[in-house]
Amino acid sequence: MEIVIIGSGNVAAVLGRKFKAAGHNILQVISRNASAASALAYEWDTESANYISLINKMADVYIIAVSDDAIDTIVSDLRLPGKVVAHTAASVSKEVLKNVTAHYGVFYPLQSLRQEMTALPEIPLFFDGNDEIAKNKLETLAYSISPAQVTAADDQQRLKLHVAAVIVSNFTNHLFTLAEDYCRKEGLDFKQLLPLIEETTSRIKDISPGQAQTGPAIRHDKETLQKHIDLLKDHPQLKNIYLLLTESIQQVK
Amino acid sequence: MEIVIIGSGNVAAVLGRKFKAAGHNILQVISRNASAASALAYEWDTESANYISLINKMADVYIIAVSDDAIDTIVSDLRLPGKVVAHTAASVSKEVLKNVTAHYGVFYPLQSLRQEMTALPEIPLFFDGNDEIAKNKLETLAYSISPAQVTAADDQQRLKLHVAAVIVSNFTNHLFTLAEDYCRKEGLDFKQLLPLIEETTSRIKDISPGQAQTGPAIRHDKETLQKHIDLLKDHPQLKNIYLLLTESIQQVK
Repeated sequence: MEIVIIGSGNVAAVLGRKFKAAGHNILQVISRNASAASALAYEWDTESANYISLINKMADVYIIAVSDDAIDTIVSDLRLPGKVVAHTAASVSKEVLKNVTAHYGVFYPLQSLRQEMTALPEIPLFFDGNDEIAKNKLETLAYSISPAQVTAADDQQRLKLHVAAVIVSNFTNHLFTLAEDYCRKEGLDFKQLLPLIEETTSRIKDISPGQAQTGPAIRHDKETLQKHIDLLKDHPQLKNIYLLLTESIQQVK
Repeated sequence: MEIVIIGSGNVAAVLGRKFKAAGHNILQVISRNASAASALAYEWDTESANYISLINKMADVYIIAVSDDAIDTIVSDLRLPGKVVAHTAASVSKEVLKNVTAHYGVFYPLQSLRQEMTALPEIPLFFDGNDEIAKNKLETLAYSISPAQVTAADDQQRLKLHVAAVIVSNFTNHLFTLAEDYCRKEGLDFKQLLPLIEETTSRIKDISPGQAQTGPAIRHDKETLQKHIDLLKDHPQLKNIYLLLTESIQQVK
C-alpha cells in the first residue's frame, strides 16, 4: 500500500519501520518536528513535510500517530475525501475523524513502542472502521505487519484493553521503579533482581498468573510479612503499596 | 563436593539439578515426602531417606531446602559436627543452625524455582556463614553453579533482598492475575497482552525503570485516567489498586 504517516514519535517511527519491512511504500512523513520528520524520511527514503496543509493526497491509507491531545488540532483542517484515515490511540474515539473522510477508523498497536528499539517487537494490532472499506483496508494492513495478532476492537473494547495494558505495563514498571529506588537506598544491586523478573514474566506464557502466585502473602506467612513491613518503616510510599497488594493477593479466590 | 539435600520441593529439586550439572555428587536426598524423595534420588542416581535420623554423615555440605516453618523441626535433632550446614531461606536467620555444627550459614537463591522447570534459570546466589570455613565452602559451591552472580549477604541484607523480590515478582504477578481476571470478565484475551509484558520487562535490561515509565499517570493525562476509573466501577479491588498506583507514579520525583 501507499501510506502517509502523520507524526514522528515512537509509534510513528516503529509502525513505519514495520510497514517498510512488510513491503509497503511510505509516501510521506508529516510532523511539526522538522528534524524528527527528516530523519524518518531519510531512513525510509521518502519525503517529509512540516505542515498538514502540504499533505500528499496520493496515498491509500493515512495513519495519524500523534499524542492523544494533538489529534483534534490535526484533524480540524484535514480533508481527505475517499481515503482511509486512522489514528493509533487506544482511548480516543474513531468518531474524531468523521469529518476527514467517509472511511475512517483506528489502528491501535497494543505494545510499548520506542524509537530507539533496535529489534522490532511483536505488535498485537486492534483495528476498527466506520464502514467495510475502512475496516478491510486497516485489517489488511494490520495482517501484513502482525500476522496472527489482528483483532477487531471498537472504541469501548479498545479503552478496556488500554486499562489492562496500563495494569500489566505501566504499573508493573512502577513496581520495578520502587524496587530500584529501595535497592539504591538500602545498598542493594537492583540488577540482581533481573533474572527473577525474567522468570516471573516468562512463566505466565505456560501457566496462568493465578496459578503462578507465590510468596508470603499467598502463603499467609504472617511472620515474614511482619518482618517486611517493619523493614519498610522508612519507605512510607512502598509500605502503603506493600500493605495494599498483600491484602489484594489474599483476597483473590 | 559431596552434598546431602534435605527437602524435596521446588528449591531442593532445582538446586540439586544445578549441583549435578556442575559436577557435584549428591550423596542423599532426605524428605518426609517419600515419593518426591525417591523421584529425585532416581533422577540423581543416589539414595533417598525419609527420616532425618538416617542422614548420611559422609558429605561435605548439607543443604536444608525446606519451607521456613519446617526448618526448626528439622534442626532440633540434627547434629553434624565438623560439617558445613546451610538453609536456603531468605527471611530466616542463620542462627537457627547454631546447635547443628560449628560451621553454618545460608545459601539463598534469589529466583523463583519450580520443580517443573525444563530449562534451569539463572540463579543469583547470596551466601552467609558464621565462620570462614562455612563462608568459603558455601561461596565456592555458589560460584560453581552461578559464576558471576554470587554475593555475600547477612541476615538483614537477605531480608531486604526478599522484600525487593516480593515487589518485583509476587506483586507483579498479582497485577497480571488482576489483569487476567479483568480480561475474562470483559471478554478480552489476556494472551494478547503477553508481547507488551515481555517488552516491559526486557526494556529494563537496557534503561532504568524510572526512565522507562510511560502511560496516562506519568503524563498526568486526566481525561484518560478518568475514563479508566469510570470503566473500573464494577471492579472495586482493581479500582483501588488503579488509584493507589496512579497516585504513586505521580509522586515519583
